[in-house]
Amino acid sequence: MTGGGGGRGPRGAPLTAVDLIRTKRDGGALTDAQIDWVIDAYTRGAVAEEQMAALAMAIVFRGMSYAETTRWTAAMIASGERLDLSGIGRPTVDKHSTGGVGDKITLPLTPLVAACGLAVPQLSGRGLGHTGGTLDKLEAIRGFRTRLSNAEFTRQLSSVGAVICAAGDGLAPADRKLYALRDVTGTVESIPLIASSIMSKKIAEGTSALVLDVKFGRGAFMRQYQDASALAATMVELGRSQGVRTVALLTDMNTPLGRAVGNAVEVEESLEVLAGGGPADVVELTLALAREMLDAGGMTGIDPADALRGGQAMDAWRDLVRAQGGDPDAALPIAVEREVIRAERSGVVVSIDAYQVGVAAWRLGAGRTRKEDPVSAAAGVRLLRRPGEAVVAGEALFELLADDEARIPLAKQAIEGAARIDDAPHEILPLVRERIA
Amino acid sequence: MTGGGGGRGPRGAPLTAVDLIRTKRDGGALTDAQIDWVIDAYTRGAVAEEQMAALAMAIVFRGMSYAETTRWTAAMIASGERLDLSGIGRPTVDKHSTGGVGDKITLPLTPLVAACGLAVPQLSGRGLGHTGGTLDKLEAIRGFRTRLSNAEFTRQLSSVGAVICAAGDGLAPADRKLYALRDVTGTVESIPLIASSIMSKKIAEGTSALVLDVKFGRGAFMRQYQDASALAATMVELGRSQGVRTVALLTDMNTPLGRAVGNAVEVEESLEVLAGGGPADVVELTLALAREMLDAGGMTGIDPADALRGGQAMDAWRDLVRAQGGDPDAALPIAVEREVIRAERSGVVVSIDAYQVGVAAWRLGAGRTRKEDPVSAAAGVRLLRRPGEAVVAGEALFELLADDEARIPLAKQAIEGAARIDDAPHEILPLVRERIA
Repeated sequence: MTGGGGGRGPRGAPLTAVDLIRTKRDGGALTDAQIDWVIDAYTRGAVAEEQMAALAMAIVFRGMSYAETTRWTAAMIASGERLDLSGIGRPTVDKHSTGGVGDKITLPLTPLVAACGLAVPQLSGRGLGHTGGTLDKLEAIRGFRTRLSNAEFTRQLSSVGAVICAAGDGLAPADRKLYALRDVTGTVESIPLIASSIMSKKIAEGTSALVLDVKFGRGAFMRQYQDASALAATMVELGRSQGVRTVALLTDMNTPLGRAVGNAVEVEESLEVLAGGGPADVVELTLALAREMLDAGGMTGIDPADALRGGQAMDAWRDLVRAQGGDPDAALPIAVEREVIRAERSGVVVSIDAYQVGVAAWRLGAGRTRKEDPVSAAAGVRLLRRPGEAVVAGEALFELLADDEARIPLAKQAIEGAARIDDAPHEILPLVRERIA
Repeated sequence: MTGGGGGRGPRGAPLTAVDLIRTKRDGGALTDAQIDWVIDAYTRGAVAEEQMAALAMAIVFRGMSYAETTRWTAAMIASGERLDLSGIGRPTVDKHSTGGVGDKITLPLTPLVAACGLAVPQLSGRGLGHTGGTLDKLEAIRGFRTRLSNAEFTRQLSSVGAVICAAGDGLAPADRKLYALRDVTGTVESIPLIASSIMSKKIAEGTSALVLDVKFGRGAFMRQYQDASALAATMVELGRSQGVRTVALLTDMNTPLGRAVGNAVEVEESLEVLAGGGPADVVELTLALAREMLDAGGMTGIDPADALRGGQAMDAWRDLVRAQGGDPDAALPIAVEREVIRAERSGVVVSIDAYQVGVAAWRLGAGRTRKEDPVSAAAGVRLLRRPGEAVVAGEALFELLADDEARIPLAKQAIEGAARIDDAPHEILPLVRERIA
C-alpha cells in the first residue's frame, strides 16, 4: 500500500485528476485553470467517469465557492456551441422551472409571451421520477416533434416567436455527460452542481434574459425553502456573470398545480388556460411568470391577461404546434382504465400532498423510472377537489387514469391519505413567495 | 431536473446502487445485505466504476463503523477463492507492512522465520510513488519469478517453508478492482477502506496468523501516529473477526530503514543481515517481527537471532530464491551513474527525512509513477551517514545511483536538506513504538 505519492511530491503533469479531486476533498478551492481543464478533459474522455464521480461527491460534501461555480458554469458552456439568437429580430426570454407535480406552465406561458411580442426559445426536458416533463406532455399531441435542428429552431423562433423542444446535442455537452453521471452516482443534491447544470444549458441556448421558477415543498426537488432560495440566488448570480438578465420566483410546490397531473390531461388543462379559463393557480402562475418575462425582455405596459382573453395566446399555441408537426385539432388520448378515490369524511380539503400525487401519476404510467422507459400519454391523476373546497363523505376526491388496470393498485396505495380534510378551511399561503433578482 | 425519485418513494429493485450511495452520503450505516450486494455486484460489473467511486468518496467523508468494515472485508474475501493452507504441515504466519522507505524487511524476515520452523506465505506488492515494493526488489535477482500458480505456491510453501510472490488473480478480486479504482479517484485515504483492503487479501491467502508492521512518520503513508494506531487497531480486530490471530507493531518511518534505498541495493543489504551483519535498525526490526511471528505461530523458546548467526536463515533464503527460478549467486545489477551528496557543515547527523530520500530514489528510477512503468534494478540511494553519526564538512552523506545521468538533477533537488546536522546528537526514539494485539 503506497498511496500513489500522496500529492505531496511533484508529479509528471501539472494538472492531474487525482490532485484535483484531493484538493476538493480536503476542502481547498479549485483554480480557474483546474476547472477549465477538468471540464474539457471530462468532455473529451481524458478524465474518466469514476474520477468525475469522485469529484462530484467531494463537491456534494465541500461545496464550491461562487467564483468556482461561475467558472465551472463557463467551462460547461465552453464545452459546446453557444447559439446566437441576435438575428431573431425580437428580444429573447426563456423560462426554466426546477420541476413539480402538475407543472404544465410552459405550455400556456410560451405562446402567451410570444403573443405579447417576445421570442421564447424554450428548451425543455423529460420527466424522471415523480415530476413530469414538458416534452412528454407535448408528445401526447399527435405528430408533435420535440427534436429540432438548430436551423429549424432559429427559423421557428423568427416566424412563430416560440419553440418548445429538446436541447440539441451540441449545447453544453459537458453538462449532458455530468447530468447523466450524477443521476446514477447519488451526486444530484448539490446547489453549485444543480445551478451550473441548469444555467449552462440556458446560457448556451443564447437567450438574452431568463426567468426561473424555483419550487420548494413536498412535491419539489428542494423540499426546504432555504435550499430553494439558495439555489435561486446562485442561479441569478450565474446568469448575471454571463450577461443574461435573470430573475427567479420562489413558488410553492406543496400542492399540485391545477386539477390535472399527467401528460394529455395537462395539455387539456393548458388549452383551458389559453382559452381564457382554467384553474386559478395555473392562471396566476402563468401570468406572474409572463409579467416577469415581459419585464426582462423590455416590454413594459403590456398586460398578458389581455392576450389570454383576446385569443392571441391560443393562436400562437396553434402556430407553435403546427410548426412542430403537431395537429392542434387532433383529439388527445383518453385513458381506458379509471378509478375514483372517494372522501372518507365530510369537511373542507385543507391540503393535497403533491409528492403523493406525483408518485401515483408516475405509477399509473405518466412518468418513467429509467431514462429509456416510454411514458403513457393518457395516464395521470385528476384532482376533483382542491384545497379550500368542501367535500361530502363518499364524494370523489381523485380520478386515477391508466392504460392498464394492473397499474391501479400501487397508485391507490401511493395516493392514500394525500388529501387532508378538516372541519374548517386552513389558511392558504401565496403561491409566489419571493422574487430574487 | 428531477432527482430520480429521491429514494423517498419505492423503487423497482430493493437494492440499488444510488440508494446505497445516498445512505452513506447522508451519514447512515450500510446493512449487511447492502454491503454483500454492492461488493458482489461491483465485482460482476453490475455496479459501475463511477458508482463505486462515489460510494468510496462518501466513505472517505463518513467512515464506516466497525460492523460495516467487518462485513465489507468478509464480502471482499467472499468475492474470490480462499486458499486452504491446512495441509502444509506447519503453522502459517504472514507479515504485512504498510510500506516505507528502505523497507526491505520481508527479504531477510521470510527465510528467517521459515528457518525457525514456520511456513511463511508472503504475498507482496509493487512500489508506487515514493515507497518501494518487495516484488520490484526481488526482481533485481536474475531469473526470479514473482508470479506463481496456486499449486506452485502451496508446493513451495510445503517444501521450502517460504514464498514471496504476487497475489493470484483469484484472491479477493473485489479488492483488486477497488484498489485500482481508489488509486485514480483520490479515495485512498480512508482507514476502513485501507484496513479492509489489506486484511481481505491476507485472510484470503489462508494464513492462520498475521503480524502487521504499521508505519507512521515522514516516509510512511500515515504521517500521524494516531492515524497509524487507529489503522492498526482496526486491522487487528478484522483479523480476529475472521479467525486469524493478528498482532500489529507500530514502527517509526521518519528515517529510512538501513543504509540502502532502491532495489538491488536493498537485496544486497538483506544479504548482509542474513549473513549475521547489516545495519542495526534493519536487524532490530527483522528480529522484533520474527519474534512476533514465532509467537503467533506457537513457536516459543526459539531465538531467531540464532538462525541469523548460524546460517540457517541464509540457507532458507537460497532455497527460496532457487525455488522461484532465481540464481542466488548471480551478481546484482550495478548503477553506471553515481553522484555523491556532501555535508555542508561538520557535526552530528540528527535526522534524515525518509520522504525526501524516497522521492529521490523514485526519481532516480527505483520506483514508478504509473502502475505500468518499469523500474530500474540498480537505481537508488545509499545513506553513507545515519542519525547519530558524526560528519565533517565536505564528507559524503548520500550516494545517488542511476542508469541514466539525466535522472540525477531532479533527485538532487529532492534530497537537498534531507540530512539535518547539529552540534550534538539528538535523542533517537525507539523504532518499535507500540504493540497492538
